[in-house]
Amino acid sequence: MSDPFVVVGGDAAGLSAASKFARERPERDVLVFEKGAWISYAHCGTPYYVKGEVERLTDLLSLSPEDAAERGIDLRRHHEVTAVDADAKAVTVEHDGETTRQSYEALLVATGAHAVTDPIPGADLDGVFTLHGLDSAAAIRAYLSDPDDDDIAAVEQVDRALVERYADRTPPERVAIVGGGYVGVEMAEAFRSRGLETHLFQRPEQVLPPFGEAVGERAADHLRDRGVHLHLDTSVERLVGDDHVTAVAHEGGTTGVDAALVGIGIRPNTDLLSETGVELGGSGAVATDDYGRTTVEDIYAAGDCAEMRHAVTGEPAWVPLGLTANRAGRAIGQTVAGDREPVGDIAGTAVVKAFELECGRTGILDHDEARAAGFDPVSETITAGSRSGYYPGGDETTVTLTADRETGRLLGGAIAGRDRAAIRIDTLATALESDLTGAELERLDLAYAPPFSPVWDPVLVAAKVLRGSLD
Amino acid sequence: MSDPFVVVGGDAAGLSAASKFARERPERDVLVFEKGAWISYAHCGTPYYVKGEVERLTDLLSLSPEDAAERGIDLRRHHEVTAVDADAKAVTVEHDGETTRQSYEALLVATGAHAVTDPIPGADLDGVFTLHGLDSAAAIRAYLSDPDDDDIAAVEQVDRALVERYADRTPPERVAIVGGGYVGVEMAEAFRSRGLETHLFQRPEQVLPPFGEAVGERAADHLRDRGVHLHLDTSVERLVGDDHVTAVAHEGGTTGVDAALVGIGIRPNTDLLSETGVELGGSGAVATDDYGRTTVEDIYAAGDCAEMRHAVTGEPAWVPLGLTANRAGRAIGQTVAGDREPVGDIAGTAVVKAFELECGRTGILDHDEARAAGFDPVSETITAGSRSGYYPGGDETTVTLTADRETGRLLGGAIAGRDRAAIRIDTLATALESDLTGAELERLDLAYAPPFSPVWDPVLVAAKVLRGSLD
Repeated sequence: MSDPFVVVGGDAAGLSAASKFARERPERDVLVFEKGAWISYAHCGTPYYVKGEVERLTDLLSLSPEDAAERGIDLRRHHEVTAVDADAKAVTVEHDGETTRQSYEALLVATGAHAVTDPIPGADLDGVFTLHGLDSAAAIRAYLSDPDDDDIAAVEQVDRALVERYADRTPPERVAIVGGGYVGVEMAEAFRSRGLETHLFQRPEQVLPPFGEAVGERAADHLRDRGVHLHLDTSVERLVGDDHVTAVAHEGGTTGVDAALVGIGIRPNTDLLSETGVELGGSGAVATDDYGRTTVEDIYAAGDCAEMRHAVTGEPAWVPLGLTANRAGRAIGQTVAGDREPVGDIAGTAVVKAFELECGRTGILDHDEARAAGFDPVSETITAGSRSGYYPGGDETTVTLTADRETGRLLGGAIAGRDRAAIRIDTLATALESDLTGAELERLDLAYAPPFSPVWDPVLVAAKVLRGSLD
Repeated sequence: MSDPFVVVGGDAAGLSAASKFARERPERDVLVFEKGAWISYAHCGTPYYVKGEVERLTDLLSLSPEDAAERGIDLRRHHEVTAVDADAKAVTVEHDGETTRQSYEALLVATGAHAVTDPIPGADLDGVFTLHGLDSAAAIRAYLSDPDDDDIAAVEQVDRALVERYADRTPPERVAIVGGGYVGVEMAEAFRSRGLETHLFQRPEQVLPPFGEAVGERAADHLRDRGVHLHLDTSVERLVGDDHVTAVAHEGGTTGVDAALVGIGIRPNTDLLSETGVELGGSGAVATDDYGRTTVEDIYAAGDCAEMRHAVTGEPAWVPLGLTANRAGRAIGQTVAGDREPVGDIAGTAVVKAFELECGRTGILDHDEARAAGFDPVSETITAGSRSGYYPGGDETTVTLTADRETGRLLGGAIAGRDRAAIRIDTLATALESDLTGAELERLDLAYAPPFSPVWDPVLVAAKVLRGSLD
């Protein structure tokens, strides 16, 4: 009997791989070691749990341990893989004070990422949170709301000590969000909908920097309109407090708060591989090839700890997103099962809801990034109606497109609006993964009917203007 | 001074061409002959005018005669072009009983299409309408509603006699719709929202045949759910009545009605070209090349009277839709102005709202049509959530994909659902115009965020299943 397929990490990438492998090769063993209590949960849903739009914490679990067992996965929670011996093809596992060794035929490292707080002194104060994992989501919600209003106590896996630390407190009235990326913007909606005075601090001049300037401005206007105090172009110097956070010290002053959320980014978890010879890429995440293989034989990596190939540049890139993790995990499960499947490229397609505003982005919008990849970038931004002008309920839709001047090839796009704007980014993602030029984009036969689009969809209007500046 | 660019037909294609030409060559003359009173209006908006969601008839006018003049277009309404002398490069024009001759340097035939009623005896009865043009929309609305509730009388162009014929009548209580295509489905919504007992008769077994069986079934269920009496697989034998329509005689019985709408199709207007040597294509519409040129020099055709090249088959096809007309007209205006621009292909992308259900389609779904074009078609249909399962407000989304078994190439797709379903068809339109395979579609990096899509968008779920049946 051959050694099992061993997976480190029981979230999206790890369990996608294990599930696919178990389905393809039911006669083989697949082991998943997860160091924590939670498996396969919806990170992206946590802001909506805090907001209350998602009622129960358990709603965010994609797969239960029982589901995993039913799929034929040998899932071991609270098992931490502490070392990899690539020559012997074995891992060291710690569980409950005991250390064991497990040999593998193939190993998938799907160790994810962790929230960064280190440039912010005071991030360890009481009342300061990151939103990485369900325990912090549960603690924030317990802090914000009546302790009886939810079912946290009923959830077996939850970090009860953490939740109880906040459940009995007086709910905060003023909150600081440090960081204006996805998490910051989504949490601003969550906090405002619970009536908190919400201050969002962002070091760059705009929120949602990967979405480009025009979408960022529109998002900022909308956030202000919904009562969020935006402090743009403002570095946070430290979080202030003796034991509990009481204020944010920032460029230009101090703002009193009762709680703070730090969402300034994540970093790949790669410590496990430090002695293995597995190479990291320029981003600090694990370098992988088209099949998710690392530089060491029979070791794969996927999800938030791994790089993938960028659809526009063809170069390695680290863009940790949910679909990428699921897709790469699934492909690796299939490859290890004996039927090679590429993990696919990433285009960096992302969408975010900021209150009623829908924002999307894909590819490369930043001109420095485009130039670094050898392109000569040109961008245009337009605003056009989302529906025929005479049909009620539409909204102005902002579209930014970036293309390469020499070839006309579309490099990236961003979009914002309140009427079916975000999902339109998929048209641009498909176009750029197909290497379409601005002219080809302009000639696409897209949908038109008054309730859904004007004759010339905003995407086509943008393509027309872009093409004008490419000629 | 050279002869002018002459355009026959003052709707989407004609005025797009004239506008583009006038902008590019302001020193040249462009003449548009329109035989009727209306120019450049939104056909697709007429059901929403009847429904009342669009308040004023004038809201549907895209361009006024004054706008046209301001753009430098010499617009002549109530001028009918009755003959083309291709050798002499001149047209014969009738206006107010006078016949004149106008020479041209280039001629664009944009004569559109007309509603078909001829297989239905009794279609000329009082109380029977087609919905082709603003006059019939105005008459239907006048008939349905309190004569004082709108501003029809204020519209200079309207066929006053027709409108007044219906304005003073008792509004109908029961209506028959003959035909379950776009117009039939949209008008069912309009009639139901005005409280009419609505019977929809459809000879095929499904509504919206170009959308395929699964979407058709879903639309039918939704129409029934909204109180529409569907008579599928039912031929209408004749409309019954002495003077005014009183019943529909159909297979299986007779249904009493007070009014009827016939929406069984349109046919290209090509009579003008019968003596010119301009060739028609197999569809009966005017054959054109990549630049909208007919088989006779300096004569172009565009819009609902012309064929275009199909993006999937590469063969000529007649798919009369609004964007196509606008795009082809604009391209021809540019070409005639001296800067050659292709009119683009058509993919037959179309979307329709049936009450709350959004339906979209693109490319080739019909297996006979696919086989006739040399493909070996395979189709799969899936249903998947439009949002993450835990996020409120989503809806089951139905996706049908068709691909060629040998190459895996995507040939067509259809989609239905109540949550941002229709606009997702643009992703499929872009994919098939880029010649993507099912496997490539499955690997696209599409958007994911709980309010907008599950991790695996319904489009990706469909691609995965399709690919399974292609392997």
